[in-house]
Amino acid sequence: MYGTVMHEPGDVRFETVADPKILKPTDAIIRLSATCICGSDLWLYRGLQPSEGPAYMGHEYCGIVEEVGAEVRSIRPGQFVVGSFCISDNTCPHCRFGFPSSCVQREFMTGAQAPFARVPLADGTLVATPEVPSPDLIPDLLATSDVLGTGWYAAWAAGVHAGSTAVVVGDGAVGLMGVLAAKQMGAERIIAMSRHETRQRLALEFGATDIVADRGAEGIARIKELTTGIGADAVLECVGTQDAMTQAVEVCRPGGSIGYVGVPHGVTFDGQAMFIAQRRMLGGPAPVRRFLPDLMDRVLTGKIKPGRVFDLTLPLADVAEGYRAMDERRAIKTLLTV
Amino acid sequence: MYGTVMHEPGDVRFETVADPKILKPTDAIIRLSATCICGSDLWLYRGLQPSEGPAYMGHEYCGIVEEVGAEVRSIRPGQFVVGSFCISDNTCPHCRFGFPSSCVQREFMTGAQAPFARVPLADGTLVATPEVPSPDLIPDLLATSDVLGTGWYAAWAAGVHAGSTAVVVGDGAVGLMGVLAAKQMGAERIIAMSRHETRQRLALEFGATDIVADRGAEGIARIKELTTGIGADAVLECVGTQDAMTQAVEVCRPGGSIGYVGVPHGVTFDGQAMFIAQRRMLGGPAPVRRFLPDLMDRVLTGKIKPGRVFDLTLPLADVAEGYRAMDERRAIKTLLTV
Repeated sequence: MYGTVMHEPGDVRFETVADPKILKPTDAIIRLSATCICGSDLWLYRGLQPSEGPAYMGHEYCGIVEEVGAEVRSIRPGQFVVGSFCISDNTCPHCRFGFPSSCVQREFMTGAQAPFARVPLADGTLVATPEVPSPDLIPDLLATSDVLGTGWYAAWAAGVHAGSTAVVVGDGAVGLMGVLAAKQMGAERIIAMSRHETRQRLALEFGATDIVADRGAEGIARIKELTTGIGADAVLECVGTQDAMTQAVEVCRPGGSIGYVGVPHGVTFDGQAMFIAQRRMLGGPAPVRRFLPDLMDRVLTGKIKPGRVFDLTLPLADVAEGYRAMDERRAIKTLLTV
Repeated sequence: MYGTVMHEPGDVRFETVADPKILKPTDAIIRLSATCICGSDLWLYRGLQPSEGPAYMGHEYCGIVEEVGAEVRSIRPGQFVVGSFCISDNTCPHCRFGFPSSCVQREFMTGAQAPFARVPLADGTLVATPEVPSPDLIPDLLATSDVLGTGWYAAWAAGVHAGSTAVVVGDGAVGLMGVLAAKQMGAERIIAMSRHETRQRLALEFGATDIVADRGAEGIARIKELTTGIGADAVLECVGTQDAMTQAVEVCRPGGSIGYVGVPHGVTFDGQAMFIAQRRMLGGPAPVRRFLPDLMDRVLTGKIKPGRVFDLTLPLADVAEGYRAMDERRAIKTLLTV
C-alpha cells in the first residue's frame, strides 16, 4: 500500500510501504475511515525534534476492524473503532489508576496516515461503537483519538469544573479543543488567547467567553484585568514553549491549576519560583483511552462537534500539502480522506 | 525586652530589642506561651540563604493576647491564640480560595522567638481557643502554627486520602508531621525515608508503616519494591534540595501527586522530563490558616499529639544552643519556654 513517510524535516512523501500485518496475537489491523495531521507532527516537520531516520507518520485514527490476532477478545472484524495515540493494555496498575498514557506496555501509535494500520494491544487500546456510525460523524469521532482527548485532559488536569474561570494558552487545534472541553466541564468563563481571526471565531463557537489577542506582558495584564486582578482558576497550556508556559503560570491564580499538554521543548522551571507561585501543575501525554468512551458518546449523542476543528480536508495522497498548509498556518488541522 | 537576633550565619544572640507595640490598628500584641526554632531558620543560620542585615527570628507562636489595635474585631485581650507564620487577612480572594499563604496582604511573621510579639492583621491571622488551654497542650498547639500545618499541607497537596500509599521524603520535623498528617487523612501505607534511629522511631509512632533508610538510587529501588513496581500515589517532599526532589519524582507513580514544602534551594525541573513523568505537583508556603481551626480542634480533643516532635526544650535565653543543637542534628526541633 501507500503510506506517509517523513524522510527528513520538510520532506513528507506518500509512497509505497509494507502492508501492515498482525505481528502479535494482540494486534488488530484496521481500515481507516479517515486520518489527520497532528500539531505534534510539525515538531518533526520543522526539525525541532531529533529524528532517527524515516518516520512512518500518523497516530490519530478511526476505522473498521479488518483482522484481529488470535488473542484479541473484545474487538471483532467489522466493528467501527477509535483508539488512542497511546497504545495501552487498559489493565495494568497505571491504566487502572486512570493513566493509560503511562501504561507499562505503552507504545506510541505510528503509521496511521495510511489506508490501513496495525494497532497493538487492540483490546486495551480500541473502543468500538455499537453500530457503524454515519459518515458525517467520522471527523468528530476521529477528533476524539487525540486532539479532543488531549484538550480534554488539559482541562481535566487544570481542574476545570462548574463555575471555573479558565484560560486557554494556544489557539492551535488542541487549544480549541481545550475550549470545548472547558465548556463541557461547566466553566463559567473561558478566556482564549488567540491572535488569529479564524481561530478566534472557532474558539467563540466552542464556548470561549472572551478573546485576548495580546501576548507576553500585555496578555498577562489583560487577563489580570479580566479577572479583577486575581488570575484564572484553571489554565490550559497547549503550546509547549517557554513563553507559553511562563504566560500560563502568570495568568493562573495562587492555588490554581495548570494542565500542560503542549510537549515542552526547551522549557525549564525554577523550583523556588514555582514554590512561591504556588500553582498546581500536571502535564503529560493525555490518557485519552480513559476519556474515549465518554467522548465518543458525546459525539454520538450530538452533544459536541469537535470535528469542526478540521478546516482543511484533503485526499490522503495529498498529505504533503496538508503538512505545508499547517506549517504555514493556512490550516488549523488537516483531515485526510482515505 | 530581650529577643532573638541573627547577626550573621551562625551568630544568634538573645539580646535587647525594642518592645513590640501596636503599629497599625489591625495589629495585636501577644505574650508567648512558648515558641520554637524552625528548620527554615537553619537555611539562614547555615548561610544558605542571603540575609539583609540582622534578622529578628521566630515565626511559630501561640500565646495570650495582651493588646489589640482599634480595628481588631474578633480577637480580644486575654484570649489564647495560635497564628500562622503567614500573616493573612482571611478575606481576600486568595484567602477565600483556600490559599491564605498567598494573601494579597501577605507578610511573613518575624520576631516570635521572644516573650512578646506583634501580629499584624490579627483578625485574619489568629485563631482563638474557646478557653485558655491546659499547659500540657502548649507544645501541641504551638506545633499547629507552622510545622504541623506545613506537613499537613504537604499531605493535602499530595492528595492523600483514605487508602493512599504515601511516601515522605525527609525526616525533619516537617516530614514527621507529614507522616502524622497522612495517617490522619487515612493513608493505608506510609513509607518514611529516614536514616536516623530517633526519627525512625518517631515516624513509626506518628503512623509510618514502613521505614526506608536507603537514599538515592537504592532508596528509589527499595520503594519501587515495596510498591510492587508501581510507585506511591502521594509523595510529600519535605527537604527542598535537588536530590530530595528527584527522589520524590522517582518514587511517585504516573498520575500520582507530589506536595513539596521544603523551600527549594537550587532546584530546577526540566519541562519535558516532568511532562513524560506525568506527576501532579503543588508546593508553596503552607496555607496554615486554612487548616488551623481543624488542627487546633484535633489537638484539643486529644486526637493528635504533634508536640511530640519537640525533642529538646530550652529556656528562651538559651536560644543559641537550640540553633546549634538543630544545626548539628542533635535535636529534631527545639521548643523554647518563655
